[in-house]
Amino acid sequence: MVAQELDVYPSRTGPEPTLIKRRDPVVHPGLDGPLTQDQLQSFASEGFLALNDLLSASELDVLRGEVQRMTSAPDLAKALQTVIEPESREIRSVFEVHRSSRVFRDLAADSRIVDRVRQILGSDVYIHQSRMNRKSGFEGAAFYWHSDFETWHVEDGMPRMRAVSCSIALTDNYTWNGPLMVMPKSHLWFASCVGETPEEHYKDSLRKQEYGVPSNETLHRLAEEGSVVDFPVTAGSIVLFDCNIQHGSNSNISPLPRSNVFFVYNSLENTLVEPFCGLPPRPEFIACRQFTPVQELPTPAAR
Amino acid sequence: MVAQELDVYPSRTGPEPTLIKRRDPVVHPGLDGPLTQDQLQSFASEGFLALNDLLSASELDVLRGEVQRMTSAPDLAKALQTVIEPESREIRSVFEVHRSSRVFRDLAADSRIVDRVRQILGSDVYIHQSRMNRKSGFEGAAFYWHSDFETWHVEDGMPRMRAVSCSIALTDNYTWNGPLMVMPKSHLWFASCVGETPEEHYKDSLRKQEYGVPSNETLHRLAEEGSVVDFPVTAGSIVLFDCNIQHGSNSNISPLPRSNVFFVYNSLENTLVEPFCGLPPRPEFIACRQFTPVQELPTPAAR
Repeated sequence: MVAQELDVYPSRTGPEPTLIKRRDPVVHPGLDGPLTQDQLQSFASEGFLALNDLLSASELDVLRGEVQRMTSAPDLAKALQTVIEPESREIRSVFEVHRSSRVFRDLAADSRIVDRVRQILGSDVYIHQSRMNRKSGFEGAAFYWHSDFETWHVEDGMPRMRAVSCSIALTDNYTWNGPLMVMPKSHLWFASCVGETPEEHYKDSLRKQEYGVPSNETLHRLAEEGSVVDFPVTAGSIVLFDCNIQHGSNSNISPLPRSNVFFVYNSLENTLVEPFCGLPPRPEFIACRQFTPVQELPTPAAR
Repeated sequence: MVAQELDVYPSRTGPEPTLIKRRDPVVHPGLDGPLTQDQLQSFASEGFLALNDLLSASELDVLRGEVQRMTSAPDLAKALQTVIEPESREIRSVFEVHRSSRVFRDLAADSRIVDRVRQILGSDVYIHQSRMNRKSGFEGAAFYWHSDFETWHVEDGMPRMRAVSCSIALTDNYTWNGPLMVMPKSHLWFASCVGETPEEHYKDSLRKQEYGVPSNETLHRLAEEGSVVDFPVTAGSIVLFDCNIQHGSNSNISPLPRSNVFFVYNSLENTLVEPFCGLPPRPEFIACRQFTPVQELPTPAAR
């Protein structure tokens, strides 16, 4: 059990939730890029950075058209890569869009995003996970608080905290239609969770997570450090956030749907090992094991 | 069936949802008060008015202490006046607090509120309904969109639109802990709903409403008129809103609970008749049939 010996972030192994101080830098020095020192420092201390109006109106039209095309593809609702809303049966997420769509592959490799992510991670990067999310109006469900890294570490074998998520707003996000919320500074603590990971956990966890969920006491402590911030950003803005920040979103009863694209960039010096829970790895469409630099990703076949 | 003949706001009677133009003024002239002409005009056109910092810190301490006392009273969780969260079994609402608590009776009759409400309604007023709401952290459930007047008209026999609700924030309301949301200008339309009212509907509807719920198309149209507004107000602020405005709130997954007190003031020239659905009236603790001017309410017995 080599993996267990090396596990500096144990989770789902003990009877009590604990907070472990982060052992990795947030910003890894070594590469220049377009972010200012202030932006880098803010990302390091708060764990996130919002960049407004990165995409143009015409780029957004293309991206929204692609979402429309994908969500109306007849077989997509049944595909493994697709997550359905529990109540309405509408498509909530489609995974691995950087492999199935030229448009999203090109967006994932866009230098406006990648140059900033490389600058934060201090190395070349590959896509660990990608997905398109739609939170429908009226009954869009909440996503409960979680650290992505906790799951990626335990279930995918991501060794250390050296990955950055990028959420790209395709629609205007208001405070009242279930936008992304984060707990600033929570990325500086690893919230070790209780409960053993069940086999094939991903089949349920993408709809409603029951393991890898921080305790109420943990969340109270983390919220005391830095409260809660939400992101009412305009379409075309992006939010970069550290892989270990606690985040979630409330329900959306408003009539306005919300959609975004989500790319996870992992450092090529932090590629996956065996999952730390000891179970088989999750499927490729959730946790990529082809460590291709994002700029060299092949172009998907035409539609 | 006199009531049916006089029913200018029919609902739950037809096969299709419809929008009926409001037939009543929003601001009823006749009484002076502390609201400015701008405030009155804004209330008339938008359907709501937020007044910041109306209560002092020491008043808030007393009110929060009263909530604490009431929600820890041993028998309250079983009382008819109490609504329990479906999942956590925590107390979500307590009705009729102006009759059970001296503190809330005095707040209901406070001239800072009552003088403004009388000015809007152009007459003396009584309390149609009162309640204390607590939306707990982590799993506070959403309240779906509704017009209170629709229910008060159909199930309680409130004849016309001449009532004002007052929501008093006892805790800071952030955009991310499930604050009140309204659809501005929606009070100018009566959203007639489909479906017949079941008997003793209130027993379920206080937890999760299934009748008197506007259709998606109706909500889209109303949101196009004036979008959606939420109220991230500090503790001690109040929001006055018209009885017919569409309102609701999203879930609260944040660690911070939210509590407020809610008084409904109805004009003494608009007292209840038989319910327009033809069923027996709802109980007194939900829909008061003692039309006592709020300033003359008896003081509840000591604790």
